[in-house]
Amino acid sequence: MSTLIQSTPHADGFRMPAEWEAHAGCWMLWPERRDTWRYGGKPAQRAFAEVARQISRFERVTMGVNGGQFQNARAQLPPRVRVVELSSNDAWSRDIGATFVVNDMGEVRGVDWQFNAWGGLEKGMYFPWDKDELVAAKMLEIEALDRYQAPLIMEGGSIHVDGQGTLLTTEQCLLHPNRNPNLSRAEIEQHLSDYLGVKHIIWLPRGVYEDETDGHVDNLCCFTRPGVVALTWTDDRDDPQRERSAEAYDALKSARDAAGRALEVHKIHQPDPMTMTKEEADGLDVVVSAFLRPAGERLAGSYINFYIANGAIILPQFQDRYDAAARRKLAELFPRREIVSISAREILLGGGNIHCITQQQPAGR
Amino acid sequence: MSTLIQSTPHADGFRMPAEWEAHAGCWMLWPERRDTWRYGGKPAQRAFAEVARQISRFERVTMGVNGGQFQNARAQLPPRVRVVELSSNDAWSRDIGATFVVNDMGEVRGVDWQFNAWGGLEKGMYFPWDKDELVAAKMLEIEALDRYQAPLIMEGGSIHVDGQGTLLTTEQCLLHPNRNPNLSRAEIEQHLSDYLGVKHIIWLPRGVYEDETDGHVDNLCCFTRPGVVALTWTDDRDDPQRERSAEAYDALKSARDAAGRALEVHKIHQPDPMTMTKEEADGLDVVVSAFLRPAGERLAGSYINFYIANGAIILPQFQDRYDAAARRKLAELFPRREIVSISAREILLGGGNIHCITQQQPAGR
Repeated sequence: MSTLIQSTPHADGFRMPAEWEAHAGCWMLWPERRDTWRYGGKPAQRAFAEVARQISRFERVTMGVNGGQFQNARAQLPPRVRVVELSSNDAWSRDIGATFVVNDMGEVRGVDWQFNAWGGLEKGMYFPWDKDELVAAKMLEIEALDRYQAPLIMEGGSIHVDGQGTLLTTEQCLLHPNRNPNLSRAEIEQHLSDYLGVKHIIWLPRGVYEDETDGHVDNLCCFTRPGVVALTWTDDRDDPQRERSAEAYDALKSARDAAGRALEVHKIHQPDPMTMTKEEADGLDVVVSAFLRPAGERLAGSYINFYIANGAIILPQFQDRYDAAARRKLAELFPRREIVSISAREILLGGGNIHCITQQQPAGR
Repeated sequence: MSTLIQSTPHADGFRMPAEWEAHAGCWMLWPERRDTWRYGGKPAQRAFAEVARQISRFERVTMGVNGGQFQNARAQLPPRVRVVELSSNDAWSRDIGATFVVNDMGEVRGVDWQFNAWGGLEKGMYFPWDKDELVAAKMLEIEALDRYQAPLIMEGGSIHVDGQGTLLTTEQCLLHPNRNPNLSRAEIEQHLSDYLGVKHIIWLPRGVYEDETDGHVDNLCCFTRPGVVALTWTDDRDDPQRERSAEAYDALKSARDAAGRALEVHKIHQPDPMTMTKEEADGLDVVVSAFLRPAGERLAGSYINFYIANGAIILPQFQDRYDAAARRKLAELFPRREIVSISAREILLGGGNIHCITQQQPAGR
């Protein structure tokens, strides 16, 4: 019931809506791999369940889960969360799942990107990623939505759009040789235009320091409405993040969006640098074919990695001195949405945050 | 999104509709186990795909499939069939899946029976059946329909209803000590009333000869409309089936339905006795914990094992001299439905037929 369409969304009049446009719901995946999530995934499962519980106050949440965890996920989640069997190698719905596009008649379709676990055999996070590659198609089958297959390796977290023709991304990730070494910048831009219906791309140089995704934009910077972006920031000139945020700031200030507007840039101060503790690292399986997460490693904490739900912002918090400022800033940027804070260190330990583990499905007609 | 409801369908005003009432669609499961389906399941997969293809001409079909067969099932099935990941131990959607109930407002809910693989550890078909036990709940999660958990071991193929309060079943199956040894006939009747909203139960003695389900009624006899049933028959007095059909005929002729009507009984002559060939048996894995299917074993062939789709009858055929008569009789009994014939020996080799591998979901409001 999900037909593979041979043309492109742009050719068919489809575009990726902004995250703040109305959602039909949100897709998540249940964490369980023991080399990503400490202590058998139990602390992460509690954190994911809390994210699902909070989002489900505002919109339908579907949790995809490997067969062996079906009963446990069902038991951990409130009844209003839909739990479906949907195998994956890890739990990053943003990066693995379909990216949804809509047309002016309110039809919804999905884009299925190629995926290589954030870098493939050399620098990727794990092997194999065979189940991840089928997640988008399976989501679209369940919803009976048609599917486009995009001819490039890309994760949903490496782009943000304003829904009006502008796309934000980073050179570090989208031009990384471990993604699409045979595609030029112009070819990648063409694919983004074809598959997301965007007209103008703003390239930022690098993502967040020590972000293991090779610099996904969704941990660094996002649109909050057309013409307005939020950027992770630090006042600490000795922090390697300072240079990255500053160069992104400069790029944003010199950019124009698809409508020709200059961008209003809001800095959101990052949490203080955090590292993985020995107790946390000791809870992880060592797996030769996967990324090693040693104690003492810096975690790529950022408040930018929030999710925009219908009527709410689901915001990561870190028991940090900057938590309250982030909450206040988001309340100012989204005055008509409830700001829902979630203690998110467990998600960060796995290498991402709330935006990385969610994927909005736009409301159809 | 599928809430477990603690009351019963009857108490909440729900009933199981007759199969001829309007469907939202049909659920199937993809065959793959190599001790049930010869030659790696490939011939059976072709047969199941043909059943799905034909039914999908009339109503939505959802095919549940184990993760490892997702891509293959997707490739073998037409795009209009929805393919979802849904693990099972074998492919009998009728027996494993939810039984759907409706109320007068058109709300739809599901009944989740207990399951022990047609008899449990002693006489059941295989071990384990852990995935089968979750199929009904997973179907209901996908559809976001609420669920009742019935406190008895039962398969959907062991009952038929007229949608007006009457249920047909067999003593051989429902009173078999390998299903619910601690429940009396009266207690079983009470559960059937509570969970299917029926008022009157017609007990037939035995099912079809050598039917490995312990005599499921859906291979023997079914309603074709209120007050009218079809019964598998043989004129051969030396066939052990003759006695079984004759005693069922007598039981039917002496019965009244819930509305007090006598039943009109239509005999449909069975195909000539068939046995599994050596070539067929040689294609099966031998598995100690599963039912052995030796060459020479009689197959429980019956034309009664058809599926009523919206506007069609999906009818098994066996390249048998009685095929045409069965087609004619069904056309007479269902004058406004297209009779779709499917060559079904491959399904029969696994121990059932078209009705056993399908499960209708009634149309809601």
